[in-house]
Amino acid sequence: MAKHATGKTNIAPVRLGMVGGGQGAFIGAVHRIAARLDGHYDLVAGALSSDADRALASGLELGLAPDRCYRSFKDMAKIEAARDDGIEAVSIVTPNHVHYPAARAFLEAGIHVICDKPLSSSLADAKKLAKVAEKSDALFVLTHNYTGYPMIRQARRMIAEGRLGTIRVVQAEYAQDWLTEAEEDTGNKQAEWRTDPERSGVGGCVGDIGTHAWNLATFVSGLETDSLAADLDSFVDGRRVDDNVNVLLRFKPEAKGKPAKGMLWSSQVAPGNENGLKLRIYGDAGGIEWRQEDPNLLWYTPFGKPKQMLTRAGAGSNAAAARVTRVPAGHPEGYLEGFANIYSEAATAIRARRKKNGKIPKDVHFPTVRDGVDGMRFIDACVRSSAQNSAWIKL
Amino acid sequence: MAKHATGKTNIAPVRLGMVGGGQGAFIGAVHRIAARLDGHYDLVAGALSSDADRALASGLELGLAPDRCYRSFKDMAKIEAARDDGIEAVSIVTPNHVHYPAARAFLEAGIHVICDKPLSSSLADAKKLAKVAEKSDALFVLTHNYTGYPMIRQARRMIAEGRLGTIRVVQAEYAQDWLTEAEEDTGNKQAEWRTDPERSGVGGCVGDIGTHAWNLATFVSGLETDSLAADLDSFVDGRRVDDNVNVLLRFKPEAKGKPAKGMLWSSQVAPGNENGLKLRIYGDAGGIEWRQEDPNLLWYTPFGKPKQMLTRAGAGSNAAAARVTRVPAGHPEGYLEGFANIYSEAATAIRARRKKNGKIPKDVHFPTVRDGVDGMRFIDACVRSSAQNSAWIKL
Amino acid sequence: MAKHATGKTNIAPVRLGMVGGGQGAFIGAVHRIAARLDGHYDLVAGALSSDADRALASGLELGLAPDRCYRSFKDMAKIEAARDDGIEAVSIVTPNHVHYPAARAFLEAGIHVICDKPLSSSLADAKKLAKVAEKSDALFVLTHNYTGYPMIRQARRMIAEGRLGTIRVVQAEYAQDWLTEAEEDTGNKQAEWRTDPERSGVGGCVGDIGTHAWNLATFVSGLETDSLAADLDSFVDGRRVDDNVNVLLRFKPEAKGKPAKGMLWSSQVAPGNENGLKLRIYGDAGGIEWRQEDPNLLWYTPFGKPKQMLTRAGAGSNAAAARVTRVPAGHPEGYLEGFANIYSEAATAIRARRKKNGKIPKDVHFPTVRDGVDGMRFIDACVRSSAQNSAWIKL
Amino acid sequence: MAKHATGKTNIAPVRLGMVGGGQGAFIGAVHRIAARLDGHYDLVAGALSSDADRALASGLELGLAPDRCYRSFKDMAKIEAARDDGIEAVSIVTPNHVHYPAARAFLEAGIHVICDKPLSSSLADAKKLAKVAEKSDALFVLTHNYTGYPMIRQARRMIAEGRLGTIRVVQAEYAQDWLTEAEEDTGNKQAEWRTDPERSGVGGCVGDIGTHAWNLATFVSGLETDSLAADLDSFVDGRRVDDNVNVLLRFKPEAKGKPAKGMLWSSQVAPGNENGLKLRIYGDAGGIEWRQEDPNLLWYTPFGKPKQMLTRAGAGSNAAAARVTRVPAGHPEGYLEGFANIYSEAATAIRARRKKNGKIPKDVHFPTVRDGVDGMRFIDACVRSSAQNSAWIKL
Repeated sequence: MAKHATGKTNIAPVRLGMVGGGQGAFIGAVHRIAARLDGHYDLVAGALSSDADRALASGLELGLAPDRCYRSFKDMAKIEAARDDGIEAVSIVTPNHVHYPAARAFLEAGIHVICDKPLSSSLADAKKLAKVAEKSDALFVLTHNYTGYPMIRQARRMIAEGRLGTIRVVQAEYAQDWLTEAEEDTGNKQAEWRTDPERSGVGGCVGDIGTHAWNLATFVSGLETDSLAADLDSFVDGRRVDDNVNVLLRFKPEAKGKPAKGMLWSSQVAPGNENGLKLRIYGDAGGIEWRQEDPNLLWYTPFGKPKQMLTRAGAGSNAAAARVTRVPAGHPEGYLEGFANIYSEAATAIRARRKKNGKIPKDVHFPTVRDGVDGMRFIDACVRSSAQNSAWIKL
Repeated sequence: MAKHATGKTNIAPVRLGMVGGGQGAFIGAVHRIAARLDGHYDLVAGALSSDADRALASGLELGLAPDRCYRSFKDMAKIEAARDDGIEAVSIVTPNHVHYPAARAFLEAGIHVICDKPLSSSLADAKKLAKVAEKSDALFVLTHNYTGYPMIRQARRMIAEGRLGTIRVVQAEYAQDWLTEAEEDTGNKQAEWRTDPERSGVGGCVGDIGTHAWNLATFVSGLETDSLAADLDSFVDGRRVDDNVNVLLRFKPEAKGKPAKGMLWSSQVAPGNENGLKLRIYGDAGGIEWRQEDPNLLWYTPFGKPKQMLTRAGAGSNAAAARVTRVPAGHPEGYLEGFANIYSEAATAIRARRKKNGKIPKDVHFPTVRDGVDGMRFIDACVRSSAQNSAWIKL
Repeated sequence: MAKHATGKTNIAPVRLGMVGGGQGAFIGAVHRIAARLDGHYDLVAGALSSDADRALASGLELGLAPDRCYRSFKDMAKIEAARDDGIEAVSIVTPNHVHYPAARAFLEAGIHVICDKPLSSSLADAKKLAKVAEKSDALFVLTHNYTGYPMIRQARRMIAEGRLGTIRVVQAEYAQDWLTEAEEDTGNKQAEWRTDPERSGVGGCVGDIGTHAWNLATFVSGLETDSLAADLDSFVDGRRVDDNVNVLLRFKPEAKGKPAKGMLWSSQVAPGNENGLKLRIYGDAGGIEWRQEDPNLLWYTPFGKPKQMLTRAGAGSNAAAARVTRVPAGHPEGYLEGFANIYSEAATAIRARRKKNGKIPKDVHFPTVRDGVDGMRFIDACVRSSAQNSAWIKL
Repeated sequence: MAKHATGKTNIAPVRLGMVGGGQGAFIGAVHRIAARLDGHYDLVAGALSSDADRALASGLELGLAPDRCYRSFKDMAKIEAARDDGIEAVSIVTPNHVHYPAARAFLEAGIHVICDKPLSSSLADAKKLAKVAEKSDALFVLTHNYTGYPMIRQARRMIAEGRLGTIRVVQAEYAQDWLTEAEEDTGNKQAEWRTDPERSGVGGCVGDIGTHAWNLATFVSGLETDSLAADLDSFVDGRRVDDNVNVLLRFKPEAKGKPAKGMLWSSQVAPGNENGLKLRIYGDAGGIEWRQEDPNLLWYTPFGKPKQMLTRAGAGSNAAAARVTRVPAGHPEGYLEGFANIYSEAATAIRARRKKNGKIPKDVHFPTVRDGVDGMRFIDACVRSSAQNSAWIKL
């Protein structure tokens, strides 16, 4: 069992606040479970809604002290920074356009930030935020949660070790069906903000889930994207953002062989798909395949040999997977455990920083503001390429 | 999202103790995560090992106060019962032979018990414990954790509603491979006690995992077992308990139709199986199939129509599943979430009992001491039938 | 590509007759395709129905000469045996009760017999037929067609080579759903004779498909059955034969280790199952799993190593599979190809026998009258055991 | 059972010749089995190799009369056309560059042509051949064999009936791994000609298998391609044709809704893929998914309802599938049966043409020279687009 999962330790939990995630929200509850699962955080403050009444009601429901249920993230940043027992970290789980101002406020107050993806609603904001983060002593953690799945860590390590040889082909996709009809017109809050460019940003589907597929593809393959050509559509009448995304990818050259090529498809109008995030990577020595909906398996084929089904914690699983694994093979771990891995890795880093010049252990991994800026570059390039009739755009 | 999963509420968490589960144990950490996941418990006391030094070290590592790290469960029951802030409930996660004396001590002290399965190491102990539990005001919760999986709840509800018609055929199995060789001779503590009749009881594989398959089959089908005929083996040289279990089942008649029949296979010597718990139930109007290793899916075939793949939180999922569901369809929940459902359901009951004559809400479900005694009857009947050349034994 | 599949050769095709399989029948057409697929047979005569008009009409439709459309198998055996260009072999594809008299007539006329399974409608007839076959110079081929699947041959060879070590556990099943309701009362001819003990024999489901599962389990494992305990049911009101079959199996000891155990389930009342023939075999060194509905795959797990997916003609496939393989990996072969393998192997044997004392090549394999008698013993033992409350019966 | 599959009928079989497919070839044997399976053809003549000795030896091995083993397809066309019992049809199974001259010779001799795909080695030849075919009374049948799979016919019919609504998204792919290394340098004849632009044409992977994926996508969806943007690579050093193909697709508008978009991937350097031909199509009312390696299943999701697994000949299968189905649900049909469906449909047409002005029944379907030209346009457009840095090219 992973060290971080063996339960509450005698090291004090991280004092955590939350921005967004009040009553009626979805992802806030996921973040709270992720923070709680390994016992490394105590949620003690919140600015849980932009509506003051709902913010208070939501906070009380979660057991927060009334005086730590804030009306705004600005108040919260200021007041908590001044308290002796103030929060050490904050989770930002709002619609995209609030990420930048909220994260900025906490970073400038010296409070670590754990922020949902995408990083912001525009590339410009992302770049500004990166500068703020780089100047700050506080950590910035981006919850590209799928990177927390053990078999994703396994795959990444295998590729880094050369088990697939030189990578040639990457196929990534993330298909859903929940926006097949105009769900945003039915009162569904999630659908509303995600299809509103003011809150979501220029990308719809590409920002919401395409960016997950792209992040995962580059995380696992270790490749850097050189350029892309994209064809985006809004199939549903009146929809203001894309809901289907087709992309050709060209990667930067590696040490040997020709540069790898790839394709990425993301869609929210593909009936029968729930959260169909899939990744397939092929090199000159072997291939791997992984599906988010069955995340405990990793298919691996060394070229010319039988296909192998590697299982989390099972035969053939490696140390990178073991590090973020809680239960034995055949007992499935899922989405929340993967999400919790990001939180627990972050907790290790945050605790290390309690000491002046405390060093974060080398093997700790979480996505950072860099990954966030890269993701925004990807979204931006997709939108621009599509506007230019799928011209190749450098990232 | 299930109500119990929306996070810590303003109702105070249940104060929890634990017996067993110290350093080197496996299932203790699982129970702790399950208790923590929805934020309904605070672990505040423990008798985590029968070894006093390890008990203390384990407790401190988990952040317990030194004076609440007990040398024995007896001390813990006595002292905690006397404290104003004493534990309200205790998790018992020891080898099987300790379940009975420990549970007895806490029940008699008026402390709710959450106990791992099987209920005890002998049917006699189980019956005694049932009497104690029935006399006690404290609740007894048995962690037959697989009953916590949402699609298991879905299947049970569908059958109760008659969607499969009169049940005819039940096929249950639980296959593993970790005892294919004499693992108990290699220093593996888990293998040692599980193959030691003094600690495990008369059943080896049949008690460890066969009882899970049987419990699940009866939980989902709603059928009562009439009798069984079993053929048990110990394939590994020198092993003192069974490691492969073949059982024929006859169920009691239902309102109409002929009584259902079934088979159950459990094995710990089947290479390629990790935790292959599977359930298939067929009635005169349809069939269902479920696999623990892919627990978010439930296959359902109404007779004469296409096979349907029902997904947790997806189209066709019902209220019984929704009650214990946290995240949307296509984001897999796993073993820990299923386990946590048992804990969170128990928390609702325990909190209801804080008031004198407090009523447990009707829709709360968890396995009880009755299920535990039934499980012991099953184990006992299997062992006796096998000893009598597979004669039919009434349960 | 398998030698026998490379097409019509310059060796003259086997002149073939057929008994049964006229208009309205099912399995006759399957046998004709199987005979035709590799080009080793010419169908030139038939007694295709017990109804004389239908026999003639069916024969003409198949392009037979009018004088070779016989009213009875007896006429056909007599007249064809006397012709210079008479049939060399006959396919018997009637209901079970006709197998014995028809096969006898042809064997006694010196004509090779290719007969559908089960061998007969009673064990007594089977034994008589075996004697006739043993005295005859003519060959007797039983179409236990599933033994013709390449990955079944692969599995058998792997076990014979010791890749699984000493076999411990065998799990066989064959589930269907087409008799969930009283299909025999709807005018379905197939259902009628298969549920009529006069034509089908004492076994219903156990004879129709249970015997396939048992045959396959013993063919692949190489084990001999010592004894069995069975529990048979007829779930559908008024049905005169079994439609659900639960069996415990004990095998004879092998050179080392304890004797293997097994279970067999066959059912025709399991909604959602079409032709769910599955085989799982586990030894002390590894396990294999195979499903008829996805027959080009064989799952193989060497103990302690990752699960491997072996594919027909793919990496890891062996010579036994290659011998009966026609197309490359990833291009699925199916039921008809497996069936054709039995026919083509038989053709090699039949052609070898054209010469006086002609020797059948060693590597030719097809099921014989011995397998047929064994199958009848299995059916008979199941029925008797069930009648004796599942007592163990020696085979 | 499909009418065409009930066996040899009293209508005389089609007299067939073959060009190519001699000793050492692969696809010739597949065509011969396909022709034989339903008994509608007699192979009576051949020009089986461009090498005269091998042509004769190959013919004799297949049982052809010595005087009908031709040295060249030209001789064969001339001499057979003059015989009273000359061939009615010819199968052309040579490398691509021979398709055009051979097909032309037979069409001009009034002999029906059954030709392997792609139609030719250049678009120019394809257009010339189309003109010849259109002038000729003889039929031209292109063996785009995957269109013969029953569940492909089912899917096409469902879409034509509007079950998926307006189509929005098409995802097609065909991945293999056999050219991951320089197989063409190892003496593998198949690899040699397929990677030689003189024999294969300008497209390598795109012509060999990409064209199959594209053909299937348009056949099933009923969509016409407007334009494409492609990125082709040759990953293996020294390879002269593409081995990995990434394509964006834009389709022509349908009656309502926005025009559909698609992606197509084909690769011969993706380790772990054997014949990974997959098709996914999504409309505003539902989606379907199909895999060639498990061809008896068709996944169908009506939007907002549970996913259904439709099986060949099972519940929910339609008349279009039934027409080309031989055996019951759960008994898999495969590649050869699908291939045979093309041949048997063609036989119906060829026999209809035996009569002056004989009409081909309406429900007969096979790919024609039009499909062949379209396929060549696709190949040509992919190659040109890739050469222009993935510019959109109209088809």
